[in-house]
Amino acid sequence: MSAFSYLDTLLTTIAAREGGDPNTSYVAKLLKKGTRRIAKKVGEEAVEVALAAVAQPKAKVVSESADLLFHLMLLWHATGVAPAEVMDELKRREGTSGIAEKQSRTEN
Amino acid sequence: MSAFSYLDTLLTTIAAREGGDPNTSYVAKLLKKGTRRIAKKVGEEAVEVALAAVAQPKAKVVSESADLLFHLMLLWHATGVAPAEVMDELKRREGTSGIAEKQSRTEN
Amino acid sequence: MSAFSYLDTLLTTIAAREGGDPNTSYVAKLLKKGTRRIAKKVGEEAVEVALAAVAQPKAKVVSESADLLFHLMLLWHATGVAPAEVMDELKRREGTSGIAEKQSRTEN
Amino acid sequence: MSAFSYLDTLLTTIAAREGGDPNTSYVAKLLKKGTRRIAKKVGEEAVEVALAAVAQPKAKVVSESADLLFHLMLLWHATGVAPAEVMDELKRREGTSGIAEKQSRTEN
Repeated sequence: MSAFSYLDTLLTTIAAREGGDPNTSYVAKLLKKGTRRIAKKVGEEAVEVALAAVAQPKAKVVSESADLLFHLMLLWHATGVAPAEVMDELKRREGTSGIAEKQSRTEN
Repeated sequence: MSAFSYLDTLLTTIAAREGGDPNTSYVAKLLKKGTRRIAKKVGEEAVEVALAAVAQPKAKVVSESADLLFHLMLLWHATGVAPAEVMDELKRREGTSGIAEKQSRTEN
Repeated sequence: MSAFSYLDTLLTTIAAREGGDPNTSYVAKLLKKGTRRIAKKVGEEAVEVALAAVAQPKAKVVSESADLLFHLMLLWHATGVAPAEVMDELKRREGTSGIAEKQSRTEN
Repeated sequence: MSAFSYLDTLLTTIAAREGGDPNTSYVAKLLKKGTRRIAKKVGEEAVEVALAAVAQPKAKVVSESADLLFHLMLLWHATGVAPAEVMDELKRREGTSGIAEKQSRTEN
């Protein structure tokens, strides 16, 4: 069983809450605010993860990573991205050997 | 089966490449550069995800999300974070209802 | 004389280099790549400033701040923002007292 | 006169508010929270500037740029960075020609 299988549950929960009451559901509230707002949160939470990694205890890296993944799942829902698409992209890169892959990633 | 199970494979691959030749393995290279450098990449890739979500086609959100998850997995490896710790944190929040959870997340 | 007056010079230099040879001018190169690319650099450099502030010597905060301001000036040029507009916005906030101002800034 | 001279005023204001009442002064409040919190704000506001530049009207780039500069000035105050140090760094780069400068900036 995947150590990440809770993310499947999370995506299902997000889909179920869409259109719910923004006053009681953070998911409904953020989806209503729209993609730009969620995108902003993804950027912000990643800054938190980065700062935690260099200057705070591991527990903070854990909790900020949870925040980041939560908002990334929201962003995927909002933009119609399926996990399989991202996994396929990761697998494709696995095929290319390390440094070559880095080059293709650097310039975009 | 989880749609995210390739992330387990990715974490195993990262662990296997640690200490490898930095000239041929991007993973070995980045792990050698250290946590600060990987943290920086996590922040940068999240900015890319955010920009893609508001101004580029979905395929770009997919590829930038792959970059983000790849570097997040590297950061977890570098800081000793196990996926289960992050999933437990996400589950804990699921328990708390939406808006209340937001409040606890807002102030930190 | 303002401690920031070199920024005026920098903006003039940026304007002068637009349309120049991308192979010899970084400014010309980045302006040619367009707003999205410059916006990405602003986000990235700010992550660097943030990481430097919490985990590196002051000299690194200085050099990353220079990178950030450089790319911010490029972004202003690319989007038609004049310094006076930003200063006016800062002055406007000075008028509102501290916490009230924070509230107006928090929600957007 | 520099178009940026209000930043000198802003730095003076920040210094004057340090140690003030966190309940009435946002500056006093943020300085009390410390460098990590201010660094986080710099990262967040830069994400906002970047998103505004690619997906919102110019007025939003202006207001987010004001937010970014405000928090950058706070971070400089908190870490003891003087504007002259950053300007000197920018001038030093002006001396090096465009692309060469980019190379020295890319690797760090």
